[in-house]
Amino acid sequence: MHLPSRIPLIQAPMAGAQGPALAAAVCRAGGLGSLPAALLTPARLREDIAALRAATDAPFNVSFFCHVQPRRDEEALVRWGKLLSRYAAEAGVDAAEAPRAPARTPFDAALCEVLEEMRPAVVSFHFGLPATDLLQRVKRTGALVLSSATTVAEARWLQAHGVDAIIAQGAEAGGHRGLFLSSDVGAQPGLFALLPQVVDAVTVPVIAAGGIADGRGIAAAFALGASAVQLGTAYLLTPEATTSAVHREALRQATDEGTRLTTVLTGRPARGLLNRVMRELGPLNALAPPFPLAAEALAPLRAAFEKQGRGDFSPLWAGESAALAREEAAEPLTRRLWAEAQQVAARLSL
Amino acid sequence: MHLPSRIPLIQAPMAGAQGPALAAAVCRAGGLGSLPAALLTPARLREDIAALRAATDAPFNVSFFCHVQPRRDEEALVRWGKLLSRYAAEAGVDAAEAPRAPARTPFDAALCEVLEEMRPAVVSFHFGLPATDLLQRVKRTGALVLSSATTVAEARWLQAHGVDAIIAQGAEAGGHRGLFLSSDVGAQPGLFALLPQVVDAVTVPVIAAGGIADGRGIAAAFALGASAVQLGTAYLLTPEATTSAVHREALRQATDEGTRLTTVLTGRPARGLLNRVMRELGPLNALAPPFPLAAEALAPLRAAFEKQGRGDFSPLWAGESAALAREEAAEPLTRRLWAEAQQVAARLSL
Repeated sequence: MHLPSRIPLIQAPMAGAQGPALAAAVCRAGGLGSLPAALLTPARLREDIAALRAATDAPFNVSFFCHVQPRRDEEALVRWGKLLSRYAAEAGVDAAEAPRAPARTPFDAALCEVLEEMRPAVVSFHFGLPATDLLQRVKRTGALVLSSATTVAEARWLQAHGVDAIIAQGAEAGGHRGLFLSSDVGAQPGLFALLPQVVDAVTVPVIAAGGIADGRGIAAAFALGASAVQLGTAYLLTPEATTSAVHREALRQATDEGTRLTTVLTGRPARGLLNRVMRELGPLNALAPPFPLAAEALAPLRAAFEKQGRGDFSPLWAGESAALAREEAAEPLTRRLWAEAQQVAARLSL
Repeated sequence: MHLPSRIPLIQAPMAGAQGPALAAAVCRAGGLGSLPAALLTPARLREDIAALRAATDAPFNVSFFCHVQPRRDEEALVRWGKLLSRYAAEAGVDAAEAPRAPARTPFDAALCEVLEEMRPAVVSFHFGLPATDLLQRVKRTGALVLSSATTVAEARWLQAHGVDAIIAQGAEAGGHRGLFLSSDVGAQPGLFALLPQVVDAVTVPVIAAGGIADGRGIAAAFALGASAVQLGTAYLLTPEATTSAVHREALRQATDEGTRLTTVLTGRPARGLLNRVMRELGPLNALAPPFPLAAEALAPLRAAFEKQGRGDFSPLWAGESAALAREEAAEPLTRRLWAEAQQVAARLSL
C-alpha cells in the first residue's frame, strides 16, 4: 500500500467529533490522521489545515461528503416537524426561533480551491465521488484519492471512476454509511464478507473499515486481504476528540448490541447508539426527509436535551465494537494498536 | 480447542440441504462434519447416524433446534394464508390438500434417547439450550456440547448454562439466526465486532461463524481470537450436499449484496438469497406466524414453484460470502480451506 503514512492505519474522519488535534496526534504516532471537512466552510477548512500543519510535518487526509443537495420539499419538512412537535413542546423549544444544524455541504469548487492551495497528501470522499471536473482538479493536486464502498458494485464503480484506493466499509461501521449505488440497508454486508469480495473484485488497494477496534481486528483485516485499516470509534474516547459529554457517556455504556442503523438523525443511514428518537420514531422512519434536511429540525431538540445532559436527540455515532474503545491519548493509542496488531500477526499459526 | 476433530473446522449443520454424505466427507478430511437433526424423526436420526458411522471412524457433530413450539393461533394462520392466497391461485395449489412442510421439532426426550444410544462426540444446539434435565442427559453421554450466541449476552448465558464451547454467529451467517435472548435483528453484530467481544466475555472456547468461506476468513477468525471456525454456505455447492436445484442455481448467481434477513420463510429470522416471497411480502413481514408455523403454509407453494424450476417460495439460505462458495467435492475442499488458512497465517506479517 502506498499510503504516505508510516503505519497503514487511518484515523477515520468524524465530522462533529474531532478536528486537527486528534488528526495531529495520530500523525505523530505514524498513522494517517484525518480532518473531516463535512461541516466546515472553506475559510474554516483553511484554518484547520493550517493548525494541523503547525502541529505535525506528517502527511494527513482531508475528508469530504459528496452527496447531492436534495430539493427542499416544504410539505415533507412540515410533516417531519409535526412528528417532532411533541418533543419540542416537552423541551420548551420554539422550532421557528431555534438555531439550525451546522450545514452539511457537499464538496464544491470553493472547497476544492482550498485543497489546491493547501495540498494535503490524501483526500477522501464519502457517498461516492464529486463531479468529474472537480475530481480531476483534486487529482491534479497530487493527492491520493480515496472513497468508501459498502458493496462490491460500489467498489467496482469507484475504481472505474479513478480512485487510488477503496475503503471497504463493513456494516459494523459507526457513522454515515458511504452507500451511493444501493439504498437497501438490509443488503449491506458485514466486513468479513465484504472485504475479501472487494479485494477479489478490484486491483487498487483496499482499506478495511467497520468494527475494527484493536490489534486483533487490524490483524484480521490484513488476513482478509486489506492493505490498510481505518478506525473511527476507537478514537472517540480519546481526550483529543471533541466528542460531546452525552456521546462520551453513552460510549462508556456501549455493548455489542447497542447500535442501530438509523435515518432519523440526518436523513441518510448511519450507525449510532440507540437513543430515544431512534426508539420512539423507529430507526428507519420513512418520514425522515432526505440528508441533510432531517438534521435541521432535530438541531434545537438536540441542543435543548443536551443542556439537560441527555443525548435523546443527538447523533451518538458508534460502530459495533464501541465497547472496545479505551480512554487513552490518541498518540500512544495509535502506537499500541499497531504494536498489538503486529504481535497478533506474528503469533498467528495454524 | 479440544474439538475432537484433527482440524478445528466445523461443517455447519444445514437442515434440508445435507445429510450423512456431506458430514462424512468433511470428517474424512479431518474436519468436524455435522448431521442436522432438526427435520428428523428419532428413527431417521438413528439411521443417519448409523450411515455416517459406516462411512467414517472420525468423530462428528449432531445438531438440534431447541425452540419452544408455539401455540397455534388459528386466526393468525388464516391471516397468513390469506396473504398467500393469490400465490396459491397463481400456482393452482389447493392449500387444504397440499402437503405440509417437514415438521421442525425441538429436541426432546425421544431424540435424546437416540443420542444416549448412539453417543456422538459432539452435540450442538441452535436457539439456546434444551431444558436442564434434557441437557444433563446429553452431557452424561460425554458429548461436547455447543450452542450459538449472536450477542455477548447470549454467550454469557450459554456459558452460565454449561456449554463446552460457544459458536459466535455473526450477522453475515446464512440460515437461521441462533438468537434466543434478543429479538431485534437490527441489533445483531457482524462477526468482526461480535467475535472479539465474545472472546473477552467468556472463558470457554469460541467458534467463529458467519461470512467465513475461504482460507482468508479462517485465518482472520483465528486472529480475532477464535479457537475454531464453522463454515456452512461454503459447502452448499459440493456434490455431497443435497442442496436443491433452484437453490444451487441461485447460489451460482449470488453477490455480496444478494442476501437478506427474513422471517417470512419459517417465522424466525434467517438469512437467505432475496427471492420473490421476501421481496413481495417484505423480508420481515409482521404477519408471518411464529416459527415453524410460517413454513407450513408456504410448503405447497414452494413445491409448486420448484416444479417450474423457480425458487420464489423456497428458503435459499446463504451467508453473505455465498459468492465465494466453489463447486468442489467436500473432502478436497476441506483440505484446501485449511491449507489456505495455514498459508495466510504463515504469510501474515505487519
